[in-house]
Amino acid sequence: MSVTTAAAAELRLERLREDVRDAGLDALLVTSDESIAYVTGFRPLQLERLFAVVVPAAGDGAIVVPALDEGQVGGAPSVLDRVVYDAGSNGLPELLAALGEARAVGVEEDHLVYGRARALADAGRGLVPAAAVVMGRRSRKDAKEVECIRRACGHVADAISRLLEDLRPGDIERDVNARVESRLREAGATATHALVLFGENAANPHGEPSDRALAVGDVVCADVSACFEGYWGDLTRCATVGPPSDWARRAWAVVREAQAAAIEATRAGVPGRDVDAAQRAIVEAAPELGACLHGAGHAIGLAVHEPPFLVPRTQDPLAEGMVFTIEPGIYRPGVGGIRLEDDVLVTSDGPELLSALPLELTEVPA
Amino acid sequence: MSVTTAAAAELRLERLREDVRDAGLDALLVTSDESIAYVTGFRPLQLERLFAVVVPAAGDGAIVVPALDEGQVGGAPSVLDRVVYDAGSNGLPELLAALGEARAVGVEEDHLVYGRARALADAGRGLVPAAAVVMGRRSRKDAKEVECIRRACGHVADAISRLLEDLRPGDIERDVNARVESRLREAGATATHALVLFGENAANPHGEPSDRALAVGDVVCADVSACFEGYWGDLTRCATVGPPSDWARRAWAVVREAQAAAIEATRAGVPGRDVDAAQRAIVEAAPELGACLHGAGHAIGLAVHEPPFLVPRTQDPLAEGMVFTIEPGIYRPGVGGIRLEDDVLVTSDGPELLSALPLELTEVPA
Repeated sequence: MSVTTAAAAELRLERLREDVRDAGLDALLVTSDESIAYVTGFRPLQLERLFAVVVPAAGDGAIVVPALDEGQVGGAPSVLDRVVYDAGSNGLPELLAALGEARAVGVEEDHLVYGRARALADAGRGLVPAAAVVMGRRSRKDAKEVECIRRACGHVADAISRLLEDLRPGDIERDVNARVESRLREAGATATHALVLFGENAANPHGEPSDRALAVGDVVCADVSACFEGYWGDLTRCATVGPPSDWARRAWAVVREAQAAAIEATRAGVPGRDVDAAQRAIVEAAPELGACLHGAGHAIGLAVHEPPFLVPRTQDPLAEGMVFTIEPGIYRPGVGGIRLEDDVLVTSDGPELLSALPLELTEVPA
Repeated sequence: MSVTTAAAAELRLERLREDVRDAGLDALLVTSDESIAYVTGFRPLQLERLFAVVVPAAGDGAIVVPALDEGQVGGAPSVLDRVVYDAGSNGLPELLAALGEARAVGVEEDHLVYGRARALADAGRGLVPAAAVVMGRRSRKDAKEVECIRRACGHVADAISRLLEDLRPGDIERDVNARVESRLREAGATATHALVLFGENAANPHGEPSDRALAVGDVVCADVSACFEGYWGDLTRCATVGPPSDWARRAWAVVREAQAAAIEATRAGVPGRDVDAAQRAIVEAAPELGACLHGAGHAIGLAVHEPPFLVPRTQDPLAEGMVFTIEPGIYRPGVGGIRLEDDVLVTSDGPELLSALPLELTEVPA
């Protein structure tokens, strides 16, 4: 599943080690699935058992892994010491040993759970929030990663096209979602998330697919994401069953304009909140059509949602190599929701779409 | 998807409130998906946004929810105050307001992330690990929950039966897993995890389905779990392609005996580690066949893996109403793995199997 070679992972480890030194840390503790995948090429199946990679300011570092997963880490960089623990341990004594004398330990504060943080602190380690150190690297994708995201977008675009072609009145929401995910799995996806919602259900951006049947006059909001070769694509398109209502046509036009404005703003040096502001100004100018319930989008890569987030509180500037979903929407309770989502790369020449799927408001035959 | 009515959720909230008082806490902060589902009937789609339920020792409590998910919480108990925050907030100011004057705040230390814990501590809250308070309730299933798990097991058993009937040499591991998950989705599963591994891949309990084709002489280890109506079933069966090798036959017999011994030990009052010891003694007595890489199993319910875990470090006794997977295995690198898994309810009369699927080592036609 991973496109990351041991050599590429080793280079990433070396760069992170420099960042660890620059941040004045003794070591960095990498614990999230995606960050572990970034520095090892191995994506853990994290359940209750601790996985971690220790990146020390000096020295080679270690990967701490449960015994039952040892067979999986063979491809990780050989510079990493393998620290394997069995079912008799919760992994923390082994992790502390792997941390050695490190006192100032950077952690992924948006992943490490409080129980483990507390155990590390009780053992005399000073924890320093360092998700930004890891994401400083992960957020700027290299050419190979960009191509993976582009390929994932291609698969997702195919899935949405086929879905919208096949849709007919009477189709059941739950079945339609199952079918989309099945096809993506059969195309090689290792993880999928389909959220195809009908009519008033689409007024909840995270509504749950139900037994509702597709009816003439419904809007359809089809948000589909899938992971291929370790990287995600995430796209949304909309349709109506029969000709669009006045509301659907107007809402779609507003969202289309908001998306174009936000994509145009997706440029190096621009604070994340400005991308959000670009879509928000347009969506919020049409309150009679519905509400603006979320930000402009989120970064995407090894995780389907990862920082930076394009929301009003994000002041950090965008940088070349970052990839974002741009996905404004408008939602009207009892009626429906319209959202348009594409994945956009920040380049020195401006925004580059990684997905090529017509934006049109598809009309499903009534 | 949820079988939990608002009335049932309200009763659970009331009981948890008693536990909060008994534990000397001012409030309990419920943050994991499954615990939120337990007390509200609403299962959040947790991404980067904070969801929480505040259960105070005195007073009604609140549910803290991102604006874009507000439409989903309609069915939660009406005693819970709705605290909705928009994309301009990370939810923490609203959470602190909902906590009111509470100082001693119980948290799910195996879910709450360090960054949020730190923010709460910086705001003067004293955090107390309280996952055991929540799990003390969640781990003892009521009759309705048991029936949900039994039904989920039925669906999983059907999926495994059909998979083993359909398997033929030349089938691709990745496709077989996609097909199993598709069928479960079409049967109404809201989440699935299939891990059907061939030959030497099965020597890694968490191996990753690959492009490997099924070959004559392979063992097949088929571990399938799925969530229906909010509750999981999780079963494992094995097969060989053509007649079993001497290793496969002997390994299967050892695992069969280990599973029977562990099921027999799954009784109220027995420390969790004793259930593990029952299987471990048998598996570890046959080192020539392979290694014992994991514990006897884990509790299952709203989460596919939840505490208590049946591992050597678990001293707490089992109680009536708990449901566990019992899943010993034996693994030989380069050759394969054999595991047998059933879901078992602890009753006053002893262990009760919730799954009815023959244990036999299936022979796939060569």
